[in-house]
Amino acid sequence: MSAPAKKLLETINDPSDLKKLKESQLSELCREIREFILDETSHNPGHLGASLGTVELSVAIHYVFNTPYDKVIWDVGHQAYTHKILTGRRDSFHTNRMKGGISGFPRMEESEYDAFGTGHSSTSISAAFGMATASALTEDNGRLHIAVIGDGAMTGGMAMEAMNNAGVSNANLLVILNDNGIAIDKNVGAIKESLAVMISSKTYNKIKDKIWLLLGGGTQYGKNTRAIVKQIGNAVKSTILKRSNLFESMNFRYFGPIDGNDVVHLSKILRDLQRIQGPKLLHIITMKGKGFEEAEKHQTTFHSPGTFDRKTGKLTNNEGQEKQAPKYQTVFGKTIIELAEQNDKIVGITPAMPTGCSLNLMMEVMPERVFDVGIAEQHAVTFAAGLAAQGMIPFCNIYSTFAQRAYDQIIHDVAIQKLAVVLCLDRSGLVGEDGATHHGTFDLAFLRAIPNLTIASPMNEEELRNMMFTAQTTGKGPFAIRYPKGRGVMPNWKTPMQEMKVGKGRKLREGKDIAIITIGHVGNYATQAVVDLEAENIKAAHYDIRFLKPIDEELLHEVFKSYDHIISVEDGTILGGLGSALLEFQSEYGYKKTIHRLGVPDRFISHAKQGELHHECGFDTEGIVLASREILNH
Amino acid sequence: MSAPAKKLLETINDPSDLKKLKESQLSELCREIREFILDETSHNPGHLGASLGTVELSVAIHYVFNTPYDKVIWDVGHQAYTHKILTGRRDSFHTNRMKGGISGFPRMEESEYDAFGTGHSSTSISAAFGMATASALTEDNGRLHIAVIGDGAMTGGMAMEAMNNAGVSNANLLVILNDNGIAIDKNVGAIKESLAVMISSKTYNKIKDKIWLLLGGGTQYGKNTRAIVKQIGNAVKSTILKRSNLFESMNFRYFGPIDGNDVVHLSKILRDLQRIQGPKLLHIITMKGKGFEEAEKHQTTFHSPGTFDRKTGKLTNNEGQEKQAPKYQTVFGKTIIELAEQNDKIVGITPAMPTGCSLNLMMEVMPERVFDVGIAEQHAVTFAAGLAAQGMIPFCNIYSTFAQRAYDQIIHDVAIQKLAVVLCLDRSGLVGEDGATHHGTFDLAFLRAIPNLTIASPMNEEELRNMMFTAQTTGKGPFAIRYPKGRGVMPNWKTPMQEMKVGKGRKLREGKDIAIITIGHVGNYATQAVVDLEAENIKAAHYDIRFLKPIDEELLHEVFKSYDHIISVEDGTILGGLGSALLEFQSEYGYKKTIHRLGVPDRFISHAKQGELHHECGFDTEGIVLASREILNH
Repeated sequence: MSAPAKKLLETINDPSDLKKLKESQLSELCREIREFILDETSHNPGHLGASLGTVELSVAIHYVFNTPYDKVIWDVGHQAYTHKILTGRRDSFHTNRMKGGISGFPRMEESEYDAFGTGHSSTSISAAFGMATASALTEDNGRLHIAVIGDGAMTGGMAMEAMNNAGVSNANLLVILNDNGIAIDKNVGAIKESLAVMISSKTYNKIKDKIWLLLGGGTQYGKNTRAIVKQIGNAVKSTILKRSNLFESMNFRYFGPIDGNDVVHLSKILRDLQRIQGPKLLHIITMKGKGFEEAEKHQTTFHSPGTFDRKTGKLTNNEGQEKQAPKYQTVFGKTIIELAEQNDKIVGITPAMPTGCSLNLMMEVMPERVFDVGIAEQHAVTFAAGLAAQGMIPFCNIYSTFAQRAYDQIIHDVAIQKLAVVLCLDRSGLVGEDGATHHGTFDLAFLRAIPNLTIASPMNEEELRNMMFTAQTTGKGPFAIRYPKGRGVMPNWKTPMQEMKVGKGRKLREGKDIAIITIGHVGNYATQAVVDLEAENIKAAHYDIRFLKPIDEELLHEVFKSYDHIISVEDGTILGGLGSALLEFQSEYGYKKTIHRLGVPDRFISHAKQGELHHECGFDTEGIVLASREILNH
Repeated sequence: MSAPAKKLLETINDPSDLKKLKESQLSELCREIREFILDETSHNPGHLGASLGTVELSVAIHYVFNTPYDKVIWDVGHQAYTHKILTGRRDSFHTNRMKGGISGFPRMEESEYDAFGTGHSSTSISAAFGMATASALTEDNGRLHIAVIGDGAMTGGMAMEAMNNAGVSNANLLVILNDNGIAIDKNVGAIKESLAVMISSKTYNKIKDKIWLLLGGGTQYGKNTRAIVKQIGNAVKSTILKRSNLFESMNFRYFGPIDGNDVVHLSKILRDLQRIQGPKLLHIITMKGKGFEEAEKHQTTFHSPGTFDRKTGKLTNNEGQEKQAPKYQTVFGKTIIELAEQNDKIVGITPAMPTGCSLNLMMEVMPERVFDVGIAEQHAVTFAAGLAAQGMIPFCNIYSTFAQRAYDQIIHDVAIQKLAVVLCLDRSGLVGEDGATHHGTFDLAFLRAIPNLTIASPMNEEELRNMMFTAQTTGKGPFAIRYPKGRGVMPNWKTPMQEMKVGKGRKLREGKDIAIITIGHVGNYATQAVVDLEAENIKAAHYDIRFLKPIDEELLHEVFKSYDHIISVEDGTILGGLGSALLEFQSEYGYKKTIHRLGVPDRFISHAKQGELHHECGFDTEGIVLASREILNH
């Protein structure tokens, strides 16, 4: 006899169908959803771990609350797969993160159930509070506004800014703290420790919550209820509670912790909380990777595991080919260790991405010299500046897209003071499947305007190593190195390191008809393009400028004197980046050449594979060839 | 008999002189310092209020601690005048904020006692913790690292990020929370309320501190001391403490509150705290404006009062001239009320600058529609996005330099989602006396790279009003309006408002020899320049582009077809702004004209009067005339 496979899930096209289920059926539904997610993500990769942990929460939210009238905002959005599956996207879920398919993150334009788009961390409380304020202003008093935020995201400063603001309001706001003790890597910091204490103070909190709920959440007995509960609470507190409660100090009513993987109990509590006015926080404990043994055991790996064997959980081996080039991330991670072994001033800093950026390698061998500061890009940069002010050489590794969070600190704390912070901007350029929120395409433009800053970008592994080597030699000041997500081009990457002349580009190929100037890894497209062009009898020169700033004026004079047609290629916004720098150079020195700029056009670029996006933006090999041909035909 | 005027202060050239004083002389010294600051700032304006409040704190810090070996970081830096006076800058204090004079903020290059430059809020804990970490790594264990931070700055998210990180360290870090209940305007939010409760729980805290100090701050009785104190503390807690302590939840040892204007007691406590290991926070209560009656009574006015009568405290009246043009700030503040009266979707948002940006005017007449969210730029923008997602039209007013803090939120939460947030960037361009940390010169470059964003800048009051009117008409999406600090040019500014065509510039003057394209208020320099040039028989055209994005291509075609020489003028970085946009336009359409870009050069610009800085950067009337002449002589 075969099990009634996916029977429940198949009946649910939107939350109104879900509401028809009996409470006793919810567990079975959760089981089915989990299977569905595992089936799908095992061959179409995605953010598995977080979504496995929040199956019950997503079901409970849509079972209890009146979505989309009630607004739910999923912080970061990695955990929103069940939400998507329950809100009309079950049948398109197989297109997750693919070109033309649904996004891996909530997006307003994708569904009315996606109340607010997410991707970057710690935005949900601000957005939900904004919506709650709008509801209050329009006297739309029945609407509940829910922010689902992880314990990692709670360390981001803007979450605290939002709580400080919302805590003194009467907003109909429920923050659900999804505490699984892990962001992508293990969560760190005082808040995490504080949460652990709250969990161990469970008994006290239970009593307190019960009293509160019995009294009707402050609605039945008038305005003195809060005071009464507080007094009772304080009487109990002394013996049991060991630590101050961060959220209560922010004036939120704190409930929990409860088991967030118990869908029936969770639904009951959510229903109770509906009656409680004002800002409140429910602390739930979930397990990342829940329900799939390998994902529970290896939570960091299964955050976003790639394809894997549905039964065993064994990851598909993509590392097999012997001569494959390494990831830039690996080269960074191994090279910083080499450098740090030679130079004891070097330290590594990451805002919660040790595994992603490979600083986990350095953590293993010199743990006291690597700092995971939590999801806290602003702090990361100024912390680095403080270290540099005392003579250390911090390599502060931040994904380019998240460095947008630290723009002010880069200007105000690093560049003005000329501090020798080495800013390593990982995942620069178009990142691929994570889409619009995650592309690191603004960095060239926003960094270029900053005085005192060196901006470099390597075309291959050797250059990355040499740039890192150069950046740590004393007296180089603030130094940014941007490099993309993914593999380089040198299987034998471990070249001896040598100092580069800052601001010095290189000529890779002499030409005659046209010159191609590239920055960074996309230069490899040009390497191929000049070969392809040669076949059409077009002789193209190729220059790797290496440094956006200071730019190599000597090299540019050579180019502008020798060529009438110039193409710039960059993996960043076409407004304000390398192409603009060339135009400024031309203007300053009175050249009148034709400059054709290839880069990311002035619109947000959706998700697809990196190569697909490069093609879409017209700066892959084919794009460069096409542009060259067109220019010369004019 | 005359009093021994300023005898003590005159003997102090650096902190070693201060240390020679007896404790009983400190009060008299503080009195003298206060007189000195008042004497100086009454005729050379500065940030008076904060510095009057921290005279005792500054004296106590340099009296007790071993500066500059011990590191002191003054968050924001408004409160650091006494610190400057005590550390070798008494005799240059009369040059405060003047061209070539000392800076109004701590600056590393100005003095070894300025351990870290400040200006923007909430950076001090990160920087101090970075330094403390450097000391730990180099086994420099005697050094203390002190962050002095206001209760306002504590609401900035990065302060929380830093505490979350530092709270789990053993850093030799002392945070001094200077709680005066006010930033520039009254401080707001849950943290402020929480602090008030701590103050009312003084008795409990006193007991707790005493126990801690008696036990030698954890150094004398070994590692169990903390546990013992905690137990004793908890026993006392139940009856007295009413609210969770934010800082304890961040794992900092909390001490206080104590009177921060009692120099002797404060010195004693600081001395005691030296013995305590690990991260700790001392909560002191001070009075902004302390010791000058008018400044105590009118704290917001006396934050930075301009010149005033030394005896009566009466402000110098600069408003006298009848036909003087209003400040852009006033025009903004009055116009948003007019608009909000017509359009009930409009709300105002400010991160702690209601008086500075003039939203205080709207607060008076429609308090429920203005939100002061605290020093929290990131939250301000995403909160605005949340409001906009629900159909409201938020005018989010942020000083341009502080908008750097919200760059990611502008991209990620507003622009990607095309939400109708009206971003009003006050104090754009060179702000004058506040100097390098405060200039709003990056905004044109960093905003221009963002898709979906309209970027406008008014040349006068009428344009500001029309831009505000236009931005609030539905369907305009994200809309940035940047305008400078200070006065416009229209004494009769209250013109009827009308909708502008988005992306449409205007021709102000026909010409023949050269065309000048300006954006924003600096266009008024060009208005004069074309007159001056006419006198030399140079016929210059003048175009006010109004919108950096979308740029008026029709107008630009007219210009590029009619003129061989073009000058761009902008109050922003010459890299990436209007001039670059013109070069991009020229490149795209194949024009080959000479474009000369005037703007802020690629270096940080120090403090001086606005006009002096415009002159220094070469884009005032004289600069434009000069550039025009040079270009035509070539």
